[in-house]
Amino acid sequence: MQTQLNPVGNMNLLSPLEVAQLQESATCQLYHLYRNCSLAVLNSGSHTDDAEIIYQQFKDFNIKVLRRERGVKIELENPPLHAFVDGKIIRGILEHLSAVLRDILFTNNRYCEDDSSAKITHNTFDIIRNANIIIPDSDPNLVTCWGGHSISTIEYKYTKEVGYQLGLRSFNICTGCGPGAMKGPMKGATIGHAKQRINNGRYIGITEPSIIAAEPPNPIVNELVIMPDIEKRLEAFVRVSHGIIIFPGGAGTAEELLYILGIMLHPKNQSQKLPIILTGPAESAEYFKQIDTFIGETLGKTAQDLYQIIIDDAQLVAQTMSKGLEEVLTYRKEISDAYHFNWSLVIEPEFQHPFKPTHENIANTEISYNLDTATLAANLRRIFSGIVAGNVKAEGIKAIREHGVYKITGDIKIMKLMDNLLNSFVEQQRMKLPGSIYVPCYQVLKEK
Amino acid sequence: MQTQLNPVGNMNLLSPLEVAQLQESATCQLYHLYRNCSLAVLNSGSHTDDAEIIYQQFKDFNIKVLRRERGVKIELENPPLHAFVDGKIIRGILEHLSAVLRDILFTNNRYCEDDSSAKITHNTFDIIRNANIIIPDSDPNLVTCWGGHSISTIEYKYTKEVGYQLGLRSFNICTGCGPGAMKGPMKGATIGHAKQRINNGRYIGITEPSIIAAEPPNPIVNELVIMPDIEKRLEAFVRVSHGIIIFPGGAGTAEELLYILGIMLHPKNQSQKLPIILTGPAESAEYFKQIDTFIGETLGKTAQDLYQIIIDDAQLVAQTMSKGLEEVLTYRKEISDAYHFNWSLVIEPEFQHPFKPTHENIANTEISYNLDTATLAANLRRIFSGIVAGNVKAEGIKAIREHGVYKITGDIKIMKLMDNLLNSFVEQQRMKLPGSIYVPCYQVLKEK
Amino acid sequence: MQTQLNPVGNMNLLSPLEVAQLQESATCQLYHLYRNCSLAVLNSGSHTDDAEIIYQQFKDFNIKVLRRERGVKIELENPPLHAFVDGKIIRGILEHLSAVLRDILFTNNRYCEDDSSAKITHNTFDIIRNANIIIPDSDPNLVTCWGGHSISTIEYKYTKEVGYQLGLRSFNICTGCGPGAMKGPMKGATIGHAKQRINNGRYIGITEPSIIAAEPPNPIVNELVIMPDIEKRLEAFVRVSHGIIIFPGGAGTAEELLYILGIMLHPKNQSQKLPIILTGPAESAEYFKQIDTFIGETLGKTAQDLYQIIIDDAQLVAQTMSKGLEEVLTYRKEISDAYHFNWSLVIEPEFQHPFKPTHENIANTEISYNLDTATLAANLRRIFSGIVAGNVKAEGIKAIREHGVYKITGDIKIMKLMDNLLNSFVEQQRMKLPGSIYVPCYQVLKEK
Amino acid sequence: MQTQLNPVGNMNLLSPLEVAQLQESATCQLYHLYRNCSLAVLNSGSHTDDAEIIYQQFKDFNIKVLRRERGVKIELENPPLHAFVDGKIIRGILEHLSAVLRDILFTNNRYCEDDSSAKITHNTFDIIRNANIIIPDSDPNLVTCWGGHSISTIEYKYTKEVGYQLGLRSFNICTGCGPGAMKGPMKGATIGHAKQRINNGRYIGITEPSIIAAEPPNPIVNELVIMPDIEKRLEAFVRVSHGIIIFPGGAGTAEELLYILGIMLHPKNQSQKLPIILTGPAESAEYFKQIDTFIGETLGKTAQDLYQIIIDDAQLVAQTMSKGLEEVLTYRKEISDAYHFNWSLVIEPEFQHPFKPTHENIANTEISYNLDTATLAANLRRIFSGIVAGNVKAEGIKAIREHGVYKITGDIKIMKLMDNLLNSFVEQQRMKLPGSIYVPCYQVLKEK
Repeated sequence: MQTQLNPVGNMNLLSPLEVAQLQESATCQLYHLYRNCSLAVLNSGSHTDDAEIIYQQFKDFNIKVLRRERGVKIELENPPLHAFVDGKIIRGILEHLSAVLRDILFTNNRYCEDDSSAKITHNTFDIIRNANIIIPDSDPNLVTCWGGHSISTIEYKYTKEVGYQLGLRSFNICTGCGPGAMKGPMKGATIGHAKQRINNGRYIGITEPSIIAAEPPNPIVNELVIMPDIEKRLEAFVRVSHGIIIFPGGAGTAEELLYILGIMLHPKNQSQKLPIILTGPAESAEYFKQIDTFIGETLGKTAQDLYQIIIDDAQLVAQTMSKGLEEVLTYRKEISDAYHFNWSLVIEPEFQHPFKPTHENIANTEISYNLDTATLAANLRRIFSGIVAGNVKAEGIKAIREHGVYKITGDIKIMKLMDNLLNSFVEQQRMKLPGSIYVPCYQVLKEK
Repeated sequence: MQTQLNPVGNMNLLSPLEVAQLQESATCQLYHLYRNCSLAVLNSGSHTDDAEIIYQQFKDFNIKVLRRERGVKIELENPPLHAFVDGKIIRGILEHLSAVLRDILFTNNRYCEDDSSAKITHNTFDIIRNANIIIPDSDPNLVTCWGGHSISTIEYKYTKEVGYQLGLRSFNICTGCGPGAMKGPMKGATIGHAKQRINNGRYIGITEPSIIAAEPPNPIVNELVIMPDIEKRLEAFVRVSHGIIIFPGGAGTAEELLYILGIMLHPKNQSQKLPIILTGPAESAEYFKQIDTFIGETLGKTAQDLYQIIIDDAQLVAQTMSKGLEEVLTYRKEISDAYHFNWSLVIEPEFQHPFKPTHENIANTEISYNLDTATLAANLRRIFSGIVAGNVKAEGIKAIREHGVYKITGDIKIMKLMDNLLNSFVEQQRMKLPGSIYVPCYQVLKEK
Repeated sequence: MQTQLNPVGNMNLLSPLEVAQLQESATCQLYHLYRNCSLAVLNSGSHTDDAEIIYQQFKDFNIKVLRRERGVKIELENPPLHAFVDGKIIRGILEHLSAVLRDILFTNNRYCEDDSSAKITHNTFDIIRNANIIIPDSDPNLVTCWGGHSISTIEYKYTKEVGYQLGLRSFNICTGCGPGAMKGPMKGATIGHAKQRINNGRYIGITEPSIIAAEPPNPIVNELVIMPDIEKRLEAFVRVSHGIIIFPGGAGTAEELLYILGIMLHPKNQSQKLPIILTGPAESAEYFKQIDTFIGETLGKTAQDLYQIIIDDAQLVAQTMSKGLEEVLTYRKEISDAYHFNWSLVIEPEFQHPFKPTHENIANTEISYNLDTATLAANLRRIFSGIVAGNVKAEGIKAIREHGVYKITGDIKIMKLMDNLLNSFVEQQRMKLPGSIYVPCYQVLKEK
Repeated sequence: MQTQLNPVGNMNLLSPLEVAQLQESATCQLYHLYRNCSLAVLNSGSHTDDAEIIYQQFKDFNIKVLRRERGVKIELENPPLHAFVDGKIIRGILEHLSAVLRDILFTNNRYCEDDSSAKITHNTFDIIRNANIIIPDSDPNLVTCWGGHSISTIEYKYTKEVGYQLGLRSFNICTGCGPGAMKGPMKGATIGHAKQRINNGRYIGITEPSIIAAEPPNPIVNELVIMPDIEKRLEAFVRVSHGIIIFPGGAGTAEELLYILGIMLHPKNQSQKLPIILTGPAESAEYFKQIDTFIGETLGKTAQDLYQIIIDDAQLVAQTMSKGLEEVLTYRKEISDAYHFNWSLVIEPEFQHPFKPTHENIANTEISYNLDTATLAANLRRIFSGIVAGNVKAEGIKAIREHGVYKITGDIKIMKLMDNLLNSFVEQQRMKLPGSIYVPCYQVLKEK
């Protein structure tokens, strides 16, 4: 099957120099990035979260950018068929394809590895702005929802209910794309928005090239942005949001929680306002108790005080977020910070520079009570980031296959806590989509 | 609780003469109609379908229309609280309140009981046009979904799936308002439209004053119109639709099926194109077999040929509708009929003039093989209409309480068929919302 | 030449009953009204103001309303060619044709001659509302500009300058349609709005069937409404405006000034706020002195105090209107009157009921100091209305041809004042468009 | 006077790094460029075209970019007062201020002097695209109007009439900003668009920093883009237009004509379609005869065949452009070139690289029949470009004051033709705005 599509918006205005960058022959690497991200969004709704398998399955998929009198055309060969309805591509997926084109080109032309912290933040802002994520003069009301892509039906329904209650209160939703806790709140908000006649509701997905195949954007995502790496993706989440909700999840969710806590623990961020709510149905109460204990035992009471746990009360979650939003805006006004991008939040380079999940890097990451809590959070974040890579990212899966499981070492007490937590994720099927048997990609060394 | 609202759209442009019509003291009857319809839309989402109970429960509800410098205000006293989120009315419900105001006033100033067939059709058109249901230059793609307000969870999910598949194909949805098969397709279409980035999807509810309390519009209904009676409501459905889908349901659904078959059986309507699809999940196969048999045994093969039964294939339903739509438009073009209002469909006065479900009228309705099939369909329609009234309409419930059950008589064979069908509706809990025990409001006399 | 057009907006949604009303054979009179008004708007930009001549010139013009699948089509035979650019009708003129269709049909189906004062006002409102002239929630900022259709180039430029200054301040413009002082302010406002990036500027023309041929709407008029007669037209002007500017003009302008003064002199209107500004270039100073003297000598100082004369200062006119607008809105808020329709202004039946300019009616109109000033204003208004009819309206021109000039009688002092004023209008070529020699249609009898 | 403004659109989304670039203290040169261009657009409507005088007059004008919670604010100190109406800035001028901010920042961050021809074209495209000048999926219909800023009233009226006829035919207008022939067509098109109800008419101004003060954008210009230099400005004109109209003008107009002829004479551009019309009122017939003769005697018959002269027929101009547009689009389709940007037009580096009008460069520019016609056109273009600089650009005026007049040398026959042409420009007051006495900034040396 072969088909030609018109990318939406300004994306059909490319100069010959730009089109040349994406030719298969040319800069080999950029083309592959472009092809794989495009494949990932076309493959939305598939039932595997193993990036390697997906890329294998669509080996003969091909994409070309062509110039025509009405602008640029995207030519697809052998695309996944469920992206089409009666032979016509779903409009939402077409928009995602266009977003991939936009972000890959934009990032390629600007981004530079060795930037200063200020420049990295500027780059994050620049990509976000270029994707029109920031709409001046719109009401600030963006809630980021984090949580697992593999959750139970009861948990999934609860995320929908929270989304519905948020939508009724005019909140827009931002997630990391993908199924589970990243899709439920958007679906719920769609209904809430429909009832409130909000027909410009925003369902923002922020992803990055190495996760997009495992967790492709659901077509409800109506604004997609592909950040260059997980660190910039996390920075984007926290700078554009006015509040964060964390649903049950696995290693990725733990990474996100540790990231935001690590940042909020920074002394310069003490007066920052950012509502963080951990929530789930009654069935998830135990799960959150475990998480809370892990945080308490590793980062301490100060970290625990940064979030609030609400069990089985979607309406209360939304109402708490409404109140929190007011405080956020009051604070931003006080310190003259932007309503739509939290410039004043201090993010240290250790949270900004990409962490490559090699066996060596994992092994060398220090996990110890000797570290200050922010650094400990940063390092714990890296470990969980590595596990996510080993679970679902093509690069990580390959590394594990070649070199065996990651060896995680550190202070024994923390190792035990971590092992317990990870085991519970495995037992609760949070590591991978059900249907597959989970083989851990790590080993926690509880004795030095 | 007391609150003041701004009606939306042109509805805050009323002259003093118009406002005067709606004062409590003035035309007593019009005020009551207005109050009760307003209460019904505010009460959306309630869990009873007994109009009398609803009116009893909100005895101290009061509504006033006030004139202010920015236009008209609606003042509510003691409204149902679930119409509000954190003290603010849901926008969708506010729009419904405004639609009630619009239609009650408009109908009152135009409508006259003894009109000719052509004038009744004009009136129906006039009300529909005044409600902006017909959008010139828009694509004709309106599917009417009929079916029960009380259906099983499996059936409900299936109606959502059909709505989703229709939404993916850009169809808009029209139903009779209310829960069950009237809500599912709209919810599904909302998601389909979201994926296709259709942010002006239409979820049209057509209701009438005596049913609105039992089957209030779900807030997803984003265009509501209140026809003066069930007959004009049915005429509105068939003239504005480009296709009809019938899900499982009870007496009301049977009434609707008989109405459309009765009309399509008219010799002058032989060349008319109107796709009619009966559909449900695998679990409903038996139900449709019963219905089909009933139609076959009463109205014959010609009537059966007018519809198609599709079991458990939502995608096929939507694809069939797509193909049918093309035929409809080709036909309309051929005979120069309007795309958005089927003027050429012949509807005889017996389908237009209101049928009052009094005991006497029910008893006098002839049900016999001696009648031509169109007239038999018309009379059967009236019987089912009476049963709906006795089940859920305030007026009918009162009549039953005072005079006992309706006695249905006629040709014995038909009586037996009818009794079987009605019994199966009762058994399958299609007559009333689950939770209540259904006491039949009728008795089928199987012997003369 | 024959062409078919699609009317804009809802006007292509007509029922067969409505279309039937406009058939040539059918209600003969309504068809003629429709044909003539349509011809008038097509003839916009012509260089004569003699309705009879226009109707003669286009004797073989014909118009038909046809029903088609996409709605209604308007078929024209032998239309004036300057309504077309390269064979395609100018969009503005097409909209005017659609407005004619809308208003002729609407008025025909509602309006009744012998209505009470409250009902007449309701009807005026109803027609205005149906034409979407009142936009709820928009800023109230409508200035009515009155003045002659036949004015000097210097005066015309000045009206443009005033329009420009009003446009820069976001005012919208309402006039009686036609050339001269009714076109200049709109053209000027177009440029002012362009500079302020107001791309929904409103240029409202309010006309009536007997004047529309002599003073057809310029295509800049982007909202046209045809009131049934001059009296309802005047009522519409004063109820929808937030201020009135009067430029130099002839008998029609005098009629308008006397109308508004007559109403504002009513004791119940004493606290009403309505800025009335008489203005023109330096060259028109003398003209306004004459008008002012006439008002002073007939209606007295109280009447003179109702308006303000500003000579040669367009910016001051606009600034004065800005200040006046604030007072208008404050007042409306105080007394809870609508911002977009001045309901509280009292208009007596003598200003509402149509005055037929027959020779008998003119002769019988009492002009005397014995009358109270409001009644005197009302009667003077009628005399000037008669002169306008005799000058440019088909009906009046015919009456003059058959019965000779109107004889105007009354109190000698007023007759002399009147004769002077009318003579100056003649000398200054304000009665008719230049190019024709003006033959007066009246005689002022200065002795009883 | 001090005031703070919100820039429109995305321009209030700047990162701290971007704002820092525009601080007075920082990159001195960029700040001055920004300040001067901002001053120029604020000074629109002034009555001098001498950049130096303007900068002198507003020595104490100051501009600052500040960051606030709602985004960026522009603070002005002592701005020209005619940019304000009753103390509020005219919206059109505010948009121009925002365009200056956008283009200065964008160009500064991208542009590099020594680029290849392909890269220069890409840069031109990039700036144009960033300014949203190219609207994908819109109808291609952009006409560039060139001509003098100092023209007679009769010529000015004629440019308005041409604009009106273009507007009636849905053309959008592009000019170089400024008064005279650059304002008239826009004003006329505004009225044409209003009659055709085109409320998104485009009035595009393309300027550059050294000319913007002498020819500031009229507020009707609703899309402004500031190219880095005159060469990129000319390239932008010819690549985005679908046709070119040249009205009477002086040295600048001659520069533009020579530019487009020089390019069209390139062998590779032989099959290009681009309608070029020279037009003016009857009074300008002689002027065009002179121009035509000059072209004939210097570049020959082939060059003359590239344009068409139409005298005193605005409607014919517009109709010719309509026909030409069809050919343009057919051609673009044939060769698969973009509708909105003429990529296939070959522009040699000699037309792309900035020409600095120093005395040395002028003196060294070879003007001789020995050159091929394209190169002769390129060199003649440079001479006229120098004269424009000496007439109205700050830099040129200064150079003349310091070093005396430019000495123009070359082939004697051409020198005589040139002297005649320039003398006629002087006599007809086309060099400078009337009111000033023109002192030539050049001397044509007719003998070697």
